[in-house]
Amino acid sequence: MSEPHPARAQIRVDPFGGHRVILAPDRANRPYAYAKSDPPVERGECPFCPGMEHETPPELFAIRDDAPNASGWLARVVPNKFPALNHATDRAEGQAPWELVEPGLGVHEVVIEHPDHRWTWADASDEEAQRVLAILRDRAAAHARDERWAYTQIFRNEGREAGASLAHPHTQVLSLPFVPLPLAREAESFGAHHAQTGRCLMCDVIERERGLGDRWIAGHGRAAAFAPFAPRFAYETWIAPTVHGARFEESPDEVLADVARILIDVARRMRRVLWRFDHNWVLHTRPRNPLLPGVFHWHIEWTTRLGRAAGFERATDTYINSVSPEVAAASLRAAGE
Amino acid sequence: MSEPHPARAQIRVDPFGGHRVILAPDRANRPYAYAKSDPPVERGECPFCPGMEHETPPELFAIRDDAPNASGWLARVVPNKFPALNHATDRAEGQAPWELVEPGLGVHEVVIEHPDHRWTWADASDEEAQRVLAILRDRAAAHARDERWAYTQIFRNEGREAGASLAHPHTQVLSLPFVPLPLAREAESFGAHHAQTGRCLMCDVIERERGLGDRWIAGHGRAAAFAPFAPRFAYETWIAPTVHGARFEESPDEVLADVARILIDVARRMRRVLWRFDHNWVLHTRPRNPLLPGVFHWHIEWTTRLGRAAGFERATDTYINSVSPEVAAASLRAAGE
Repeated sequence: MSEPHPARAQIRVDPFGGHRVILAPDRANRPYAYAKSDPPVERGECPFCPGMEHETPPELFAIRDDAPNASGWLARVVPNKFPALNHATDRAEGQAPWELVEPGLGVHEVVIEHPDHRWTWADASDEEAQRVLAILRDRAAAHARDERWAYTQIFRNEGREAGASLAHPHTQVLSLPFVPLPLAREAESFGAHHAQTGRCLMCDVIERERGLGDRWIAGHGRAAAFAPFAPRFAYETWIAPTVHGARFEESPDEVLADVARILIDVARRMRRVLWRFDHNWVLHTRPRNPLLPGVFHWHIEWTTRLGRAAGFERATDTYINSVSPEVAAASLRAAGE
Repeated sequence: MSEPHPARAQIRVDPFGGHRVILAPDRANRPYAYAKSDPPVERGECPFCPGMEHETPPELFAIRDDAPNASGWLARVVPNKFPALNHATDRAEGQAPWELVEPGLGVHEVVIEHPDHRWTWADASDEEAQRVLAILRDRAAAHARDERWAYTQIFRNEGREAGASLAHPHTQVLSLPFVPLPLAREAESFGAHHAQTGRCLMCDVIERERGLGDRWIAGHGRAAAFAPFAPRFAYETWIAPTVHGARFEESPDEVLADVARILIDVARRMRRVLWRFDHNWVLHTRPRNPLLPGVFHWHIEWTTRLGRAAGFERATDTYINSVSPEVAAASLRAAGE
């Protein structure tokens, strides 16, 4: 028998389905470390709260007046203490032809969005929300300068149902040495639509949704929110700039300002309409593989946690949703200020 | 604006990612029907318990002595009262070229596995487990005779974390008018391996895993259990017949008997090793699309609910797993009787 445990992160490709798995032993040495049933950590013992800066690795960036790694900051970026991927790599070899192993290289950072443990996007001022988006853009741009990273996934988990392990408001930036399958598929869809029509699929969708109205939620300046045509989850909402842009990391401040406003607006509408606010949002930006079609339109997908993906979804990547996007959008439109 | 709500089930294809969504308004008329926080229904008020047969639609099949739809049964098959798909269909048309709508046709059945509300596969006798598998096979075979169904997904949700809405032991059989993307991808992997080697990928994997031993969990006669090379979830376990067979619905009794024994064995090992037993298992069988490669090897994928898929997984179909399959298999091997 070979080594019982990869000492460092390792990426494996499933020989049947083609998806990738990151084996990350650093994230938990024992299965019991998974327990999520304790009460969430509160203010005072939270490693992301002011005064606890020694609990995180040294900061990579901060908006602050004082010396690094002290209190007095408005937002901080730190390496994830339990990274899914890092610069160390396990021996990258599989033994059978179908056992594909890739080096477990990557960068995994945390953007601590606000000093207040209880802050949410529904409470944000325009200035606070813009600040967070600008930091995310700048981190993604920094990662993009390293040719090893094929894709940067920005994602936000809020609430235990959404898979968050810490309650303090934060967003994660994870740069990967491969292009995830769904992003490659999405890039191909953009490419096919562009080949047929000469236009961007998202620009066409936004134009149609704005004109139709059924699935439209809100528009502010250069940004819009709408329910997607085929939402996987009840009340799923997509947020996109209405001016074309393939890469989030190249977005100008004035576009981010409008996206920030609409994210605040969506968060407030969600809080009014739904009994459970736990959610994820994920940002899709153009993967850096030059073989993929060049056309893309960055956007954010906000998904709720009202139901739970069960065996059917795990097996089929098909989603049963009992709230149509037309009904969801009507509720969210009505919940506007 | 068009109709605010599809009156009947409708299947929509996501224009960006290509996955399908089943909009099933019958499953919940109001978002609050999703609430899962109440205590689970107990014996006495459970619609799947003996004496409550009037709470389910009339049975399609049962192993029983008495008259249909009365007590005195060992297992029952009933239509799902809140089907994801059924024989009624909504007007199937999208309005923009990228808005693909398919008729919401399908069959959604529930196999009530045992009269005892608290029975689990870890408690099953060989006879009980064989009975359930034989019923599942026969229902899948009955569905396969209808040319409208391209794929039959058999899946089992146990526990609230696994998305089960009823605690009484049951498995679901959902026949679909399309082949889900992951099954098509899997069929392509089998086809590619067969084209290269003239052999079945699963037969080769089983032979290698048995020889290597790191990821092997147990073997009984014509069936085996092992940790897959690239598990998405901690302690993920695959169960397969060791004799080649593409279609579960054509499996002979003697193969099902061995698979039944190993399912019981895996359930018992899981209960011993893990602090949280909630799980799903899903059965993969050859999709009926004749354009897909003919080679396939049916199997069951048992996945735990120790962690929770968060934003990263939702965005990327990539899974962060901190328990390597070699470590998981060693624990499950040691937990044998």
